[in-house]
Amino acid sequence: MKVCIIGAGSVGLGLAAFLLNAGWDVCFITRKGKSDDLKNGFRVYGLFGDFEFSASEYCVSEDYASCEGCDYILITTKSYANREIAESLNRIKDKIENSKIVVAQNGWGNSEIFKEFFGKEKVYTARIITGFEREKPNLAKITVHADEMVIGNIFDKMLSFNVEDLVEALNNGGFEAKVSCEVDKHLWAKMLYNCALNPLGAIFGVEYGKLAESEHSKSIMNNVIDEIYDVMEACNYSTFWDTKESYKEIFYSKLIPITASHRSSMLQDIENGRKTEIESLNGVVVKLANEKNLSVPFNEFLYRSIKFLEK
Amino acid sequence: MKVCIIGAGSVGLGLAAFLLNAGWDVCFITRKGKSDDLKNGFRVYGLFGDFEFSASEYCVSEDYASCEGCDYILITTKSYANREIAESLNRIKDKIENSKIVVAQNGWGNSEIFKEFFGKEKVYTARIITGFEREKPNLAKITVHADEMVIGNIFDKMLSFNVEDLVEALNNGGFEAKVSCEVDKHLWAKMLYNCALNPLGAIFGVEYGKLAESEHSKSIMNNVIDEIYDVMEACNYSTFWDTKESYKEIFYSKLIPITASHRSSMLQDIENGRKTEIESLNGVVVKLANEKNLSVPFNEFLYRSIKFLEK
Repeated sequence: MKVCIIGAGSVGLGLAAFLLNAGWDVCFITRKGKSDDLKNGFRVYGLFGDFEFSASEYCVSEDYASCEGCDYILITTKSYANREIAESLNRIKDKIENSKIVVAQNGWGNSEIFKEFFGKEKVYTARIITGFEREKPNLAKITVHADEMVIGNIFDKMLSFNVEDLVEALNNGGFEAKVSCEVDKHLWAKMLYNCALNPLGAIFGVEYGKLAESEHSKSIMNNVIDEIYDVMEACNYSTFWDTKESYKEIFYSKLIPITASHRSSMLQDIENGRKTEIESLNGVVVKLANEKNLSVPFNEFLYRSIKFLEK
Repeated sequence: MKVCIIGAGSVGLGLAAFLLNAGWDVCFITRKGKSDDLKNGFRVYGLFGDFEFSASEYCVSEDYASCEGCDYILITTKSYANREIAESLNRIKDKIENSKIVVAQNGWGNSEIFKEFFGKEKVYTARIITGFEREKPNLAKITVHADEMVIGNIFDKMLSFNVEDLVEALNNGGFEAKVSCEVDKHLWAKMLYNCALNPLGAIFGVEYGKLAESEHSKSIMNNVIDEIYDVMEACNYSTFWDTKESYKEIFYSKLIPITASHRSSMLQDIENGRKTEIESLNGVVVKLANEKNLSVPFNEFLYRSIKFLEK
């Protein structure tokens, strides 16, 4: 079995390690000029063990044509790169006619871009809530692990079982994963958490725990959550908690306490002059709300603020 | 003529200088332990000249009883001190039965607190859009001057002319001032400007000019302005520009350009661990909106954010 991994960031390196452990062939597709980062091997260590690979054990390419004939194409880049990646893959469409695309990114609306080009049968979605950090271009650390990886098809649930071989390989390689027919619900659960905490943590420059200590930041987050529930309802999406209040209960009692010391990834992006993933998080909420003529001012305020701070 | 000035901040020192120039008696009422700040005289310099006064030329007291028999009581503290000041003055009510109170502060709703205790005939309101900075406890600098000071009665316009002697003294002392029957409109104009720029400048940590350079910060400010117009309309208040669009036109074409390098006072307050005046600015907008069952989410977001950052 052969997998191409688009993006050799921390998630890309991590998943590559487990699939290599399982005996799969791995080829990284990197941005132009970035393939040299992996010319001397790479290492993944942390929660699930310590794995090192020499350059002879995998391939690295800057050319999408290297995806030819692979079984899986894993999209592990930042989400803002998706349209460019989809267009690049589309140019070699006939070479990847038997490949399944698995989108393993933050936010909502990412798989939709690939579906536009390749149709719902070919595009799968993964949700990962494991913390991968890239300490060096070829060194990734797994720092936290909140739940197993889930993979499925959000456009046609019954197609989800088509990724059983990938799930099995990840498990064999040492990483917890399972097929799920409810990846959409998992993604919206992650959306709620991320949309409430990530941009606000960036704007205020504080760790997640601080945001739960003040009635004022809680009021903002509650409004963000309420608005997202309204959007989910209008768009016929759902998650595992039926009501806003039941989600908030778990949000404050469980989700924030276990990640209280986490620093917002958008804060780190802004501090380092990088683009954030705001478009796939609160940006999507605003876009879906506009389509349904809903007003989501708290999400819009966060979206606009991060766009301002990105400059 | 005798004036008591509550608060020996930059505005208090500035107005004292002009009234002393005009030959009025001036007594500062300071917070406990702060009267020593003025024991060796004070100086005001900048746009309107350079004036220095020795301690023998004025009085300083920490006791509100010193207001006895004065013609005017000028309130120049930060607005969050108002209720405590009104209560203190109320305890010597019989000693100040012929004194007029002039509230010279930022925001809306300040004079209302004094009206609760002293009635509309006694409470006057000033709007100042001159930049006073306190470089030392007894040294104030006048840095910018956007328009003359206006003073009047916002509860009963025709009473406005009762402050003609104060206006004349300020002019004689070297500061531009006039009686106005439209101080309420002036205050709302200043509210619009301040509510849109001051908290957002604090949250983003940028000068006012930067906020007009991005479509995203402009979108936030436009929403803030729209909401304030809705609140003004619901409460039967008005300002000099009849429509939201006509205000925004002047806001971007004139008001921001001339104050582009200004740093938000709330930003300075937060950086120095001080309380801000958010309650009298966006806080009042939220309060008035709640009374009228209006939704003002952008103002509320700003209000909540500043309350969070104050901690």
